[in-house]
This record gives sequence, C-alpha cells and structure tokens, in this order.
Amino acid sequence: METVPSYEIEGRIKRFKVSLEENGLDGAFLLQNVDRFYFTGTIQSSVLFISRQGEAILMVQKGFERARQESPLREIIPVTGRSRIRKALGDFGFLDFKRIGLEMDVLPVNLYRRYKQTFPEYEWVDVSGLVLRLRMIKSPYEVEQIRSATRILHRGYMEISKIIHEGMTELEVDGHLALIARREGHMGVMRMRGWNQEMTYAHVLSGESGATISFLQSPHGGRGNTPAMAQGASRRRIGRGEPIGIDYGVGVNGYIADQFRTLVIGDLPDELKRAHEVSLEIHSLFAREAKPGVFCSELYRLAVERATKAGFGTYFNGYGEGKVRFVGHGLGLEIDEYPILAPRFNETLCPGMVVALEPMFVFPERGIVGLEDDYVVTETGVERLTVTDQTLIQL
Amino acid sequence: METVPSYEIEGRIKRFKVSLEENGLDGAFLLQNVDRFYFTGTIQSSVLFISRQGEAILMVQKGFERARQESPLREIIPVTGRSRIRKALGDFGFLDFKRIGLEMDVLPVNLYRRYKQTFPEYEWVDVSGLVLRLRMIKSPYEVEQIRSATRILHRGYMEISKIIHEGMTELEVDGHLALIARREGHMGVMRMRGWNQEMTYAHVLSGESGATISFLQSPHGGRGNTPAMAQGASRRRIGRGEPIGIDYGVGVNGYIADQFRTLVIGDLPDELKRAHEVSLEIHSLFAREAKPGVFCSELYRLAVERATKAGFGTYFNGYGEGKVRFVGHGLGLEIDEYPILAPRFNETLCPGMVVALEPMFVFPERGIVGLEDDYVVTETGVERLTVTDQTLIQL
Repeated sequence: METVPSYEIEGRIKRFKVSLEENGLDGAFLLQNVDRFYFTGTIQSSVLFISRQGEAILMVQKGFERARQESPLREIIPVTGRSRIRKALGDFGFLDFKRIGLEMDVLPVNLYRRYKQTFPEYEWVDVSGLVLRLRMIKSPYEVEQIRSATRILHRGYMEISKIIHEGMTELEVDGHLALIARREGHMGVMRMRGWNQEMTYAHVLSGESGATISFLQSPHGGRGNTPAMAQGASRRRIGRGEPIGIDYGVGVNGYIADQFRTLVIGDLPDELKRAHEVSLEIHSLFAREAKPGVFCSELYRLAVERATKAGFGTYFNGYGEGKVRFVGHGLGLEIDEYPILAPRFNETLCPGMVVALEPMFVFPERGIVGLEDDYVVTETGVERLTVTDQTLIQL
Repeated sequence: METVPSYEIEGRIKRFKVSLEENGLDGAFLLQNVDRFYFTGTIQSSVLFISRQGEAILMVQKGFERARQESPLREIIPVTGRSRIRKALGDFGFLDFKRIGLEMDVLPVNLYRRYKQTFPEYEWVDVSGLVLRLRMIKSPYEVEQIRSATRILHRGYMEISKIIHEGMTELEVDGHLALIARREGHMGVMRMRGWNQEMTYAHVLSGESGATISFLQSPHGGRGNTPAMAQGASRRRIGRGEPIGIDYGVGVNGYIADQFRTLVIGDLPDELKRAHEVSLEIHSLFAREAKPGVFCSELYRLAVERATKAGFGTYFNGYGEGKVRFVGHGLGLEIDEYPILAPRFNETLCPGMVVALEPMFVFPERGIVGLEDDYVVTETGVERLTVTDQTLIQL
C-alpha cells in the first residue's frame, strides 16, 4: 500500500508551525480524520498535537501498529482516554502553553467541552482557516494523486458510454459507475467538509432530473430515489434526445477528482446544444485567463458575463432558488475546499491550487448540460488534469 | 417517490414535546440532516424549531418547494440567514423562552457560537440523548423500511455468490455489491453518527484482510486500498479455502440494514468452521433469550460466555487492540444507534428496538468468520429481519 512520503508530512508540519507562530499560538490539536491524515499520513483513531516549537505527537487510541506503519512521524505513542492525553503532553513539557488551536468548523460541541475540561488553563482558538489555507496549495505529489483519480474517471465515462441505452434507469448507470470506480481503485468515500453536506459519488441526471433543485451546494442536485437522500440518481428511465448529465467523483490515496460530462442518446435540441457550447467557451476563457495573480471573483464575473451575453444568464449554474453563486471550487482531500470562484472570494490564484470549474446550464423541466473539469494552477497559467475530451458525448 | 406518512411525523414530534417537558426545556433547534429528516420527512437545507407547546416550524434555506412536497408539517417557511430565524421565531411568539436544546454531540463549535450570538438570552442544553432515545424505538413503518433493505442485501449475497471466483480482487466484489445495491434502490449513503467514523458500505475481507485491525469501532476493519481510507476491500486476490467475510449495508428511505456472511471457495479449515458454528450458536442463544426486560449487558455476557466456553474467547469480536467490547448495536437512520449490547449498557430491551447482532471471530493472519443479522424486538421476543440463510456460504 502506498504511504505518504515523509518529506510531504515534514513540509506540511513545518508550514503549519509557521502559521501557528504568525497567529500567536503555542500549538494545536488536530482531531478530524482528514486533517490528521494531511499532517500524519494515517487516519487511525488518534489525537494529533502540533506544538509551535517541539515535535508533533500522535497519540493513538486504536490502530497503533498500523499508524506506525503508515505515518513517518517520530513521536507515535499509544494513549487511551483524555486524561492520559494530558499526561502525555506533560511528559513532553507542553502544559505551560496558553493559546491552543482546534478545528472549530467541524469539531462537535460536546468534544470541545471535554477538551476545555481536561485543559482548563488553555485559551482555545479556531485554526480551521489556517489548516484549510495550507491545504489549498497542493504539492506536486498531491497533484499526482488527483491525476491518478482523473484516469479512473475517464475510464468510467468511456465504459459507461458503451453501456447506457434507452430505458435504462439512472440508478443502474450509477451502479455501473460505482463498480468501475472500485474495481479501478477508488478509495470508497467522497469527503465533504461542510456540515450536513453529503454526496453520493456519482450524480446521474437524465432529462428533467437534472433540473430538480436540492439542498446540495451545487448547480445540480437531482431527484434521488428517496427524500432521505434527495439527490443523485433516481428510478427514472433514460430517454432519447434528452441530456444525461453525469457528475462523477473518485478518490485515490485520499485525493478526489471531480468531472461532469453531458451525454445524449441521439441528439440534443438546438438550445441545449448551444448552451453546452457556451460551457465549453467558458472553459476556454478560463484556460486563457486563469493564472497566478488573477482574482477568483474576476474569473466568476467573466463566466457570468459570457453566459449572459450568450442569452443563458437565467439558467447559469441553476435557476430560481436552485442557483448557486460560484462557478468553481477547490478540491483535494475534500470536495469543498478553497479557493472558490465566487463573487465575494477576494483572493487571487496561486500556483498549486486545484480548481474544479463547473459552468452548467439548468433548464427547468428539460435538464442540465455543461462540463466540469479539474485544473491545477501553474506558474504561468492552468493545466487541465481531467483527460476526457470536452465534447458532448453522443451515443 | 415515497414520503414519510404524516402520522409518523406527528407521533415523533408529540413524543419529543413530552421529552422537552420532562426535561424542563422550552424548545429545541434540530439542525443535523438525519434528525431533521426524522421529525419532518425532508433533508432539504433548513432549520427545525420544535417548541414544547406551539407548532414545529421548518425554516427552509434551500429546496423550499421540495421541502413542502416531502414534509407534512404545517409551518414550512422560506428563511435565509440566522437573523431572519430570530425574526421568524419572534413572529411565532417564541422569543421569551429560556432553556433551548441543541444536538451537541454533532453540532460544530462555530455553528454553536453563532446561535449563541443570535440568541444571547437563551440557556443552551444538549438534547442529543433525548433525540437518540426517541429514535431507538422503531415504529412498524420504520421496521418495514429496514425489512425492504434486508431484501436488497439478500439479493446481493445471492448474486455475488455466483460471481466470486479464485483470483478476483476484493475491490471487484465490492464494486459488484455497489452495483446491485444501487440498481435495487439503495439510497446511496450509509450514515454514521459518531464523529470521524465513516464506512464504505461493503467490507469485503478475504483471508488475512479480515484480521487487519483498523480505526473503525467494529470487530473488523480490513486493509482498504489506501491509508486515507484504511478499511474495507483491498487489491488482494481471493484464494481457495480461506474465509471471505462480507459485511454489506444498504439503506431504503433512510433506513439501513446491515448483514455479515462468511463465504468460502471450497472449504474452511476445521477451527474456523467450528468458530463459525459458535457464531450461529450465539445467534440461536440470542433468539431464545432476547426479549423485553432483558438487560443489554446480560446479552453481551451470554455471548462472551458461549464464545469462551467454546475456546474462542481470545478471538471473540477481535483480538488484541482490535477487540471491541460489544456484540450488537442499534441501527435505523444511522448505523451506530442505541441500544448497544455491551458490558456497560445498563438498559433493557424494549419492543421496537432494532439490533444488529454480530458475534465474530477474528484469527490473526487467517481472517474473520461469523454472522451478522438484524433483529426487531417484539412484545415477546425477537424477530429476525435479515432473510439470508444462517449458513456458511460454500462456493
């Protein structure tokens, strides 16, 4: 099994220590699975403490031997119970600290209260922003993981193109995508950070399914097959001449790739075909304009402008209450990372950012068309990571 | 699409109001997807407020029309932003309240802080225990949903028995299980409540994979194919004469069923075969002894006693640091519900509880054998919901 290289882990911890320093923090507990994986290379049940000056200590509650095999950290110790965490920190001379960080965007209240009780002398500070900003810039190693995932996606689209036929249900297509993903090495989950956000890892949306508004922070949601998971594939049978929008995500070694393609049995009506072309034009515009120093909000503005000029502004990334105010999002260990290509995201692109660009057009009762591709920001522009041709897939 | 019957929703809210009354609470915000679904029938993006005396109000942030179609609640209103939530509660005359509940076992700290800021006059109380205790007792409607899910599981085991062959990878089997599940109507996610607990929805564990210890609170974990999701199926090829442990879960209308079967190509070594028989004996013992009034801890004790008498105590539900101290768990909208059949769970069985019983034997380097089945507690005993024969499946 491939483990995370030690230079990756060392670099991340080093940069986080600088971040702690800059923010006047003595250290931080990292408790959430994905953040711990980022800094250690393992998600075995554990508590990670990173101090500004000393070693990072991984205190393992379950899966100790495995954590040692997976993580290059020097200080990995077995610890059960919170009181022993206090003792362990004491052994390292870490108890005279004052300001300590926690991931307060995801940490449950009851767990926070227990930490406050165990360490009453600490002042607690939210460090989720610091962690997410570090994670926003991907290393070449991380980009390679995403690239591996894009190859599975491509294979999925190619195979599914041969399988889809009139009368097949969306759920059957979804099942085949799951089979392909797992067989090719998808890690089995798609992680989202936002609370209450969750995804089935493919959305298969034919005809009016693609226009169904859902709770998800996404241009599309889909009907799903139950109000209990009101998104994604339904029992609807796929017809001829209607858009089949497929959003497909897979993860390799923790890193997610995310792609959307429009397929059709036969041909699309002219208006939808034209909208698909506009989606492609927005991709071309992005590939030309996106580079380090360009504001994310400006890239959003350019996309909206192009969509509006083409006469499709009303349907751009949703209509009515289903409209979302972004055209792209960062992705990596989670599918909802920074940066966001949105009006109020006043930051510029930097080398190493990975962005999924998703200009979509949602036509009420008719469906969804568009393209989503993943790009990495280079020194001079962007490089597309997803490899499938940017065309309408006609079956 | 099947929506939750209005009598279900009314009954749940009524019982929760009694719970609020008993605990001196004026009302509660229900914010987590699953809890909101339980009390409303929809997971559209929203905030639910249940007051002890007045109406339940669902304030919808995204997916308003859909929430109205899915939920039988009378008071469903569109609300954006927390300040408008305050205004909406004011309109209903709900601002002179004192003690208000929140789901503090899952609510992130930052969200909690924002609620405290918006409603500085309230005293906040954790109501997650109250919600989980309500959800622990299933109605006949809920049991029927779980029963529907067990039929998909059965189909999965039957189909996969025809597909598995020597040299096939665990991941391929996992993919086929996903395909079958989705095609038959699985809702696409398996929800766990415990923070940092997550699951791929099948575990396919052949030979020594079944003995790999993981972070998961489960008798088995598996290798997985990456440390980033260190559980479940791996690239290992299935061999002859070794146990193939398959834990399979699917959800119908929110309700999960969970089953484990042991398969083998050819035959198992005698010791493992005997352990499998002991697992079946523990199921028979449970089917005889489990009834309303029996302590959960006593059922755990009986299982351990039987395992120990048979000489397999060391391997019962894991070995070494991988051992878990329970033999069964509640399940419903989430896979880690109450009750728990564990030494310190000092409560008795009640009619309507649904329990997954999982006596497993994990042999270091050899693998896992056992049976997991779901049972509903009736007035006089238990009824098995999972329908697959309780035998070793020989291929």
